[in-house]
Amino acid sequence: MRKLLNEELSRKTVSEFKQSPKTPLVVVLDNVRSLHNVGSVFRTGDAFLIESLYLCGITGTPPNKEIQKTALGSTDTVDWKYFKTTKEAIDSLLQNGYKVYAIEQAENAVTLDKYSPAEGEKLALVFGHEVKGVEQEVIDNCTGVIEIPQAGTKHSLNIAVSAGIVIWDLFLKLNPLLANR
Amino acid sequence: MRKLLNEELSRKTVSEFKQSPKTPLVVVLDNVRSLHNVGSVFRTGDAFLIESLYLCGITGTPPNKEIQKTALGSTDTVDWKYFKTTKEAIDSLLQNGYKVYAIEQAENAVTLDKYSPAEGEKLALVFGHEVKGVEQEVIDNCTGVIEIPQAGTKHSLNIAVSAGIVIWDLFLKLNPLLANR
Repeated sequence: MRKLLNEELSRKTVSEFKQSPKTPLVVVLDNVRSLHNVGSVFRTGDAFLIESLYLCGITGTPPNKEIQKTALGSTDTVDWKYFKTTKEAIDSLLQNGYKVYAIEQAENAVTLDKYSPAEGEKLALVFGHEVKGVEQEVIDNCTGVIEIPQAGTKHSLNIAVSAGIVIWDLFLKLNPLLANR
Repeated sequence: MRKLLNEELSRKTVSEFKQSPKTPLVVVLDNVRSLHNVGSVFRTGDAFLIESLYLCGITGTPPNKEIQKTALGSTDTVDWKYFKTTKEAIDSLLQNGYKVYAIEQAENAVTLDKYSPAEGEKLALVFGHEVKGVEQEVIDNCTGVIEIPQAGTKHSLNIAVSAGIVIWDLFLKLNPLLANR
């Protein structure tokens, strides 16, 4: 099976990206330390057409060389905003009608495979610090918690990998037509 | 919602991991350059109980400090083997009855959302070099190609993120009971 050339991939231009209807999904980074992780989430956000990326607290922001190493230009396409605290970001989302879910391991969390957004729901997902995860007080402000079920010895995925898994899973659930393009 | 403590996560011990039935999935890394990506795939492999990780060509192998930084101990749980060439790894898998799929963008690739393994199928997935992807001659040896459908400007995910997405998706399809634990 012949590999496709770059020009055969139907890649959007930056202006086509900006004008495209988005996956109704905002991704919130709660004090993510690694700039490589931030860049990687930008890149995943480009692939799955997320609406916006909210960078909070110590999370680095573009322009930044380290973010660019893994973002590979997707900081020019994915819309982003900076908030001093994750609480401000979540308050703003809740006021604008979003359901806000922390991606964590918590009591009564719903597992990702069982979670289905309601029709027309506007959704935001909060991913946390590499070691500390999402802060308890941030979780307390959220609509709920979604957990990636894990079966091994660690129960701790890299945050860029977690974001990839959850964004992919919700891209399919929110946008069956896009995935069937 | 209260965050769970580490001791509440039902994490397996190393010996419980070794004795557990695995997701029937071998992951093959075809000349992956970044040791951080290799470590991250180990960590994801631990979370979703993959059968084995085949490291080929220039792909680094444990013990290695850089792999350890992102693997966080999962090199002790996930079974792995080294092959000088990816062709040797694939030949060995095919001879042992595995279906081997490259994760790439190629003519007539099946998209991940549409791919369903047959009941009882033994499956291997090949992920390629950060820039070059999976080599064409490696693809020519595979059973087929699975593509992660992407809608943005890049059509290029980080390899550790790609592996997370595909391993998660197949973990659910291969092991509904595990995901429902």
